[in-house]
Amino acid sequence: MATSKIFQHGTLGLLVPGLYDGTITAGELLTHGDTGIGTLDGLNGEVIILDGHAYQAREDGQVREIDATETLPFASVHFEAPQHTAKLQQLNQAAFQQQVQADYQLTNVFAAVRVDGLFKHIKTRVAPHQVKPYQSLVAATAKQPEFEGTNVQGTIIGYFAPHLFQGATVGGFHLHFLSADHQLGGHLLDFEIDQAQLKVQNFADFQVHLPIDNADYLTEKFDNATIDAAINQAER
Amino acid sequence: MATSKIFQHGTLGLLVPGLYDGTITAGELLTHGDTGIGTLDGLNGEVIILDGHAYQAREDGQVREIDATETLPFASVHFEAPQHTAKLQQLNQAAFQQQVQADYQLTNVFAAVRVDGLFKHIKTRVAPHQVKPYQSLVAATAKQPEFEGTNVQGTIIGYFAPHLFQGATVGGFHLHFLSADHQLGGHLLDFEIDQAQLKVQNFADFQVHLPIDNADYLTEKFDNATIDAAINQAER
Repeated sequence: MATSKIFQHGTLGLLVPGLYDGTITAGELLTHGDTGIGTLDGLNGEVIILDGHAYQAREDGQVREIDATETLPFASVHFEAPQHTAKLQQLNQAAFQQQVQADYQLTNVFAAVRVDGLFKHIKTRVAPHQVKPYQSLVAATAKQPEFEGTNVQGTIIGYFAPHLFQGATVGGFHLHFLSADHQLGGHLLDFEIDQAQLKVQNFADFQVHLPIDNADYLTEKFDNATIDAAINQAER
Repeated sequence: MATSKIFQHGTLGLLVPGLYDGTITAGELLTHGDTGIGTLDGLNGEVIILDGHAYQAREDGQVREIDATETLPFASVHFEAPQHTAKLQQLNQAAFQQQVQADYQLTNVFAAVRVDGLFKHIKTRVAPHQVKPYQSLVAATAKQPEFEGTNVQGTIIGYFAPHLFQGATVGGFHLHFLSADHQLGGHLLDFEIDQAQLKVQNFADFQVHLPIDNADYLTEKFDNATIDAAINQAER
């Protein structure tokens, strides 16, 4: 089933004060897309969804497939159907992001970005599992394990969102990584492409699904400026 | 066809620098909902959609039904299926908004609000039709015709949105009005309820549909702080 939209459960904003309880099952999430990113209940690691399978990069460096019954507080998914493909080589993260945003005129458009290939260098971080009472996102992610690899085969998957939607999601690029051998994954901090194939999928539609049956969500007093600053600190 | 989502074409943010060209037909919009609000191509008046019919409140005070081929730069619609109804009496706008937000725990939830009944007082304004080159929203709405009525039968229709989505839409309440005799309509500036029935419909999903084939939209350099300030000035 192909759709031309991004389906997002929750907001980045709800993670900021520490609403880490999972409010959608992985099974339900995968009915809305076969590709995407997110985090698990308790901010437990980084989620990478490829070809209909959801994986967790854990803070101990392990990668495992997620069961359909596990829950997530935040995730974005879509059904993969890229309009654009291109060959990339010898590009670092800054050059990659600048080139992709410009070449596909993404500035005011939602898009999925997937890069499969060989990476000279990969650096990720993984959010550590939180227990209640939950700390804020900035406090919870102040110390995170980082992982690095060189000459890694793997896949970058993530999104570009217009900055107007910062808070609802991450404005700009939000990219996760999973190596082909499942030995390295997480939220991308830095990368350098050796040889890879780029896929870009533009979306006219962005659908946000909110956890309106969750009492903590309903009563939280969110502040837009706090959310904006926290995303810039914790998700870049 | 009932859905549990709000479908919004465009963003409030794109109106701020003056992107007033219509980018969806009224006919297509009505396939996504039978109830809602918006504005027409050229910021031409205030749109009120009730029971599958779309009306324009014009700057000259007239109200007319919109043809399916007319276009809109911004509109929000849904299929009406309220979960809550209540009788209201003797309430001004401030008390109404406070009561509805509190009673239905709307702060972090998207909701449609409809009020049918008798109003002691109604005050609306109507955005004046703009011609190119378009001025900004704040400039275009600096001088707007206002309309008032007393002891008016009619309908308030609009939305409540979480403040996190200010920019994408109006954070808080955004309400339009249409009198039963179609002699008075527009964006609500003030009202006082005599006797009326309230309908509230919560949504788990908010779907934004962006005009990604519109060259002006793709190349506009939006600024979140400017958009936030302009919405607070022009849409309250």
